Amino acid sequence: MPRFKALVEYDGTAFLGFQRQIAAQRTVQGELESALQAIFQKAIPVIAAGRTDSGVHATGQVIAFDADWRHGAQALQAACNAHLPEDVVILKIEQVSSSFHPRFDAQSRAYAYRILNRPSRSALYRSRAWQVRKQLDWQKMNEAAVFLIGEHDCATFGNPPQGNSTVRHIYQASWARENDWLTFHIEANAFLYRMVRSVVGSLKLVGDGTWTVEEFVAAFRACDRSRSGKLAPPQGLYLVSVTYD
Amino acid sequence: MPRFKALVEYDGTAFLGFQRQIAAQRTVQGELESALQAIFQKAIPVIAAGRTDSGVHATGQVIAFDADWRHGAQALQAACNAHLPEDVVILKIEQVSSSFHPRFDAQSRAYAYRILNRPSRSALYRSRAWQVRKQLDWQKMNEAAVFLIGEHDCATFGNPPQGNSTVRHIYQASWARENDWLTFHIEANAFLYRMVRSVVGSLKLVGDGTWTVEEFVAAFRACDRSRSGKLAPPQGLYLVSVTYD
Repeated sequence: MPRFKALVEYDGTAFLGFQRQIAAQRTVQGELESALQAIFQKAIPVIAAGRTDSGVHATGQVIAFDADWRHGAQALQAACNAHLPEDVVILKIEQVSSSFHPRFDAQSRAYAYRILNRPSRSALYRSRAWQVRKQLDWQKMNEAAVFLIGEHDCATFGNPPQGNSTVRHIYQASWARENDWLTFHIEANAFLYRMVRSVVGSLKLVGDGTWTVEEFVAAFRACDRSRSGKLAPPQGLYLVSVTYD
Repeated sequence: MPRFKALVEYDGTAFLGFQRQIAAQRTVQGELESALQAIFQKAIPVIAAGRTDSGVHATGQVIAFDADWRHGAQALQAACNAHLPEDVVILKIEQVSSSFHPRFDAQSRAYAYRILNRPSRSALYRSRAWQVRKQLDWQKMNEAAVFLIGEHDCATFGNPPQGNSTVRHIYQASWARENDWLTFHIEANAFLYRMVRSVVGSLKLVGDGTWTVEEFVAAFRACDRSRSGKLAPPQGLYLVSVTYD
């Protein structure tokens, strides 16, 4: 049966995360599988590159599924989008090798994290960013982020989702500023459970003066989960892209 | 009694526009007046620089109201924000002359209009932009927009909200492109009713090849409401700022 790879965008606000739950809670996987069920009149399981938490968004999640469809990938995309709710959309579908696995074959994942740094809360971006009122020193946050780059034991920032290794290779970690917006771009071979939110919560402590850069580095090198800053809230996080060979 | 000027941001998605309605429909004015009622235990009318339509957003709406408050503008802002729902926020309050009028004293208004121009609908920006699937020639749209700048009879693009003149002075009208996003910036001394949406709906016809630049200019110069393109949808429109002396 043909295997399809699809690029998915979603607004995480009204979802209890990506992964299907046992109870009848709304998940992205649940909506994707319901759309496929409606088209194929049978249960078709969906596998994703990464399981995002409740409230986390995606502009480039990757999924795969097997389906007996012979009318071309574009027509399948249109059929899926017609059955999906307005907060999930498939941006692209292509047929791939039947050995393709979105999680195991991924070479790297890129996330973005957005902070709106101003004294007032935001009406327009309340479910799209972390609203931090205290002025952050984003250049200090960048100085600290540089230490993340490379292959390191990242145990301070998360538990491994499977297996025991907490070593990850981080290719990029940097902040960009535009007016009141601070955006963090991070790319790694893979991430530990809630790692980006843990890293951002820790870098925020550097930005607000709670920690020096050296204290951040010491916490990172301690490889001790209890040394992490508080988790940054989910609504600022976006799964941007997953890279394959 | 002191008069206060406030800068207001709102997400227009769940509002039936700015202006209070006779029926019990949710409006921005209604929410602002409810907050003031809760603080002052009496009805305090709010006047705005511009009345935005249902679904239209604001990052810089300006309102004014009179209130007997002697604890400083910052404390009043905090009190208002504590009573406002999450989709409205006051960004700044200052005490002004008792003759200040947000609409009559405004020297100019600036709006932004955002188009997401890509083949797929958007899950994340469905209530924040006009989703146009057909590839638009934004440079042609810019060529046409240049003709808007200056003092012109704009009757093609709207009816006057009050009085009879349809002459408006447009200071800026241009498109910027970034990836799949086209953003229109327009500033004028004042606007006719639904004028920005009418202008954007007409410029979109240039972008998708329905009209040449010359046909756009001919429609504009005809000063005939029936010659306008279809109104662009409200969710792409943002009231950005109002300028005073």
